[in-house]
Amino acid sequence: MMQLIENPKKETWIELIKRPEADIKDVEVAVHAIVTDIKRNGTVALKKYNLILDGYQGESVMLDEKSFQEADGLLDSKLKNAIEHAARNIEKFHSANRFKNEKVETQKGVVCWKKQMPIENVGLYIPGGTAPLFSTVLMLGIPAQIAGSKNVFICTPPNASGKINPAIIYAAKIAGITKIYLAGGAQAIAAMAFGNAGIPRADKIFGPGNRFVTAAKNLVSASGVAIDMPAGPSEVLVIADEHANPRFVASDLLSQAEHGSDSQVICLCISTEKAEAIQTETITLLNKLPRKEIATKALENSRIIILNNLDETIEFSNQYAPEHLILACADAENLAEKITQAGSVFLGNYSPESAGDYASGTNHTLPTNGFAKAYSGVSVDSFMKNITFQKLTKEGLNGLAETVITMAEAEGLDAHALAIKVRIEN
Amino acid sequence: MMQLIENPKKETWIELIKRPEADIKDVEVAVHAIVTDIKRNGTVALKKYNLILDGYQGESVMLDEKSFQEADGLLDSKLKNAIEHAARNIEKFHSANRFKNEKVETQKGVVCWKKQMPIENVGLYIPGGTAPLFSTVLMLGIPAQIAGSKNVFICTPPNASGKINPAIIYAAKIAGITKIYLAGGAQAIAAMAFGNAGIPRADKIFGPGNRFVTAAKNLVSASGVAIDMPAGPSEVLVIADEHANPRFVASDLLSQAEHGSDSQVICLCISTEKAEAIQTETITLLNKLPRKEIATKALENSRIIILNNLDETIEFSNQYAPEHLILACADAENLAEKITQAGSVFLGNYSPESAGDYASGTNHTLPTNGFAKAYSGVSVDSFMKNITFQKLTKEGLNGLAETVITMAEAEGLDAHALAIKVRIEN
Repeated sequence: MMQLIENPKKETWIELIKRPEADIKDVEVAVHAIVTDIKRNGTVALKKYNLILDGYQGESVMLDEKSFQEADGLLDSKLKNAIEHAARNIEKFHSANRFKNEKVETQKGVVCWKKQMPIENVGLYIPGGTAPLFSTVLMLGIPAQIAGSKNVFICTPPNASGKINPAIIYAAKIAGITKIYLAGGAQAIAAMAFGNAGIPRADKIFGPGNRFVTAAKNLVSASGVAIDMPAGPSEVLVIADEHANPRFVASDLLSQAEHGSDSQVICLCISTEKAEAIQTETITLLNKLPRKEIATKALENSRIIILNNLDETIEFSNQYAPEHLILACADAENLAEKITQAGSVFLGNYSPESAGDYASGTNHTLPTNGFAKAYSGVSVDSFMKNITFQKLTKEGLNGLAETVITMAEAEGLDAHALAIKVRIEN
Repeated sequence: MMQLIENPKKETWIELIKRPEADIKDVEVAVHAIVTDIKRNGTVALKKYNLILDGYQGESVMLDEKSFQEADGLLDSKLKNAIEHAARNIEKFHSANRFKNEKVETQKGVVCWKKQMPIENVGLYIPGGTAPLFSTVLMLGIPAQIAGSKNVFICTPPNASGKINPAIIYAAKIAGITKIYLAGGAQAIAAMAFGNAGIPRADKIFGPGNRFVTAAKNLVSASGVAIDMPAGPSEVLVIADEHANPRFVASDLLSQAEHGSDSQVICLCISTEKAEAIQTETITLLNKLPRKEIATKALENSRIIILNNLDETIEFSNQYAPEHLILACADAENLAEKITQAGSVFLGNYSPESAGDYASGTNHTLPTNGFAKAYSGVSVDSFMKNITFQKLTKEGLNGLAETVITMAEAEGLDAHALAIKVRIEN
């Protein structure tokens, strides 16, 4: 069960905020071999891995039109309505706060501006297996569509008959995606990076995955293919004050813990009584869960920490930089103002993480492992890049000439100075 | 000299847009050893490399206060004025178009918003050597200051007496940076990544460098330290129509070529006469340059390509995705509207690349090697990350409940559903 730690000294926080070291070392050699094989042998190699790893031996690596059409009939209307409802909220939130482009005249005759343009070729990796992550199709596909990316496609592992879960297909259709490729694991990431195995080349690759997928994303990103963000086990930090409902908090801790045995769960309290109440409720609820075994393992690495006051909990949380932060506190709005490091923050007793995981509108692809210190969750901006422009008049260039010539010559770059001189002498 | 290629078939474009393969393979082993040494041995290892590689054996790895004070007196006022002028324009452009945060009620009782926050710890790598890149100090330091990053510091290699170029110090002061650390190469990158060698830990590392620096940035980024963008040799693509001035174009090609023997220079024309005139002018100007030898080598890998019309030149350029694009065309404004892939675009005869390299206001840290398809140049956003927030009322949660429960159960995540159930049953 979760460790309970009372009033740890600040010097020990550095240990308490540590995540278990992600271990992808043991798959790196295998992943390197797979990626190199795809790079050299394209389609032939991909078919080989589809057969060995997913038992699929079909000729085509593209999901057929028939599967697209059939998906609707295979899902009950309750799930379809749920997917559509979530999609509406995601679209509404992600469409707001868009970048507005303005021209800036930095000095007379020197006009500079910036333009946001969609990334054209976007590959989304969606894991297969027992839990079909169709919610991730919405979280990645909808912002890509708002951005205006031309060519958005999915790679997901097929089963032995070349089929995939119809909910993934349905969510893809909602997000306007018409191309699904049947490939999983490191081989799918490599195929998207090189575009040589019957799958289009992606300028940027998004999506979660197991250690093979993570290692392959790291590997191809070192050669310049953009990826969404570095991956790590999912995590939540809950700050629970005296008004927190122990049962609500316990359910939030468990919804993180059920993700995987390597999930991180941290709860910060300001009294021993509340901490113990939360621990008791966690045990009670745990016994009701189908994924009890996974959650139990995750809880073993997890901690309830009692600190002196709410300011200290905020300080701890900012050092930890959690992927998800739940403020189960009466004064959540004011506390939220003090948050400087987090992926996504949930305020008050009625904002559970699972609302944001599926349907409130915010994105659920978020920086884990302390990466929130430098990375943002996925947004429309993740599917765009900026181009800067400038136009100088002759007068504008005259006004910059001495500055540019002086700096260029001081940096030893005489041709840079020459490019100004030939123009102003003209 | 530059190859001249007339009307190549479209099938051959894929070869023409290829960059020479960056070769950092041969330094990877050495870099891995250095990075591991710094990780394990911190300050002791850093001092060893400072001595072996830069001849510096001082005790302190931090630039002393005296060097900060002396820098002003060591520079002539013309250069100081130039640096201040450039800084003003960079600040003006980079302060514009800032993100505005708005709350969005995605449905009744479900309020979501996004907040931009500065990345706190920012390390800037500035190469040393013969050409002191003080302009890069402005290009990285000013946006970091606008973003509000708390702890911005520079790493740059010292000379044997522990000194660095005063122009770097002066530019740092202009950008509000007060901490300069004496370390270069892969060891500096590792020290910033681990924060264990008398140099603070950086959440994100920015800046150019040689192959050792590039390999070290790749290596530490795979373990989650953010970096500005993948590196590659600098490049320019010029589109020259019948109104282009061959002398101006030649000076632009040369200011790219002088950067390094691996620089890429491409010129697209729509007539043989113009192409030949540009080639002739390039040879004439080349002979006047101190860095003639470097530029000559770069030009050997470079190409003047004649295409059928301006639309084809734009199509080619968008496929190439150049770091710098100069539209030396009468109709530059209209052509610029068709650009979908580039780092920074310069319009017309009086907008040379060197204006943007130093002082027009736009940033000069830009994506090379076709990375403009997915990456943007440095801006204030590069020094910030976004946090999303959400607050649901009980009514808001009720309105989402069925959707979240249905989706969570379909994904096999029952605790996610439970977190909603315990709240609505309450």
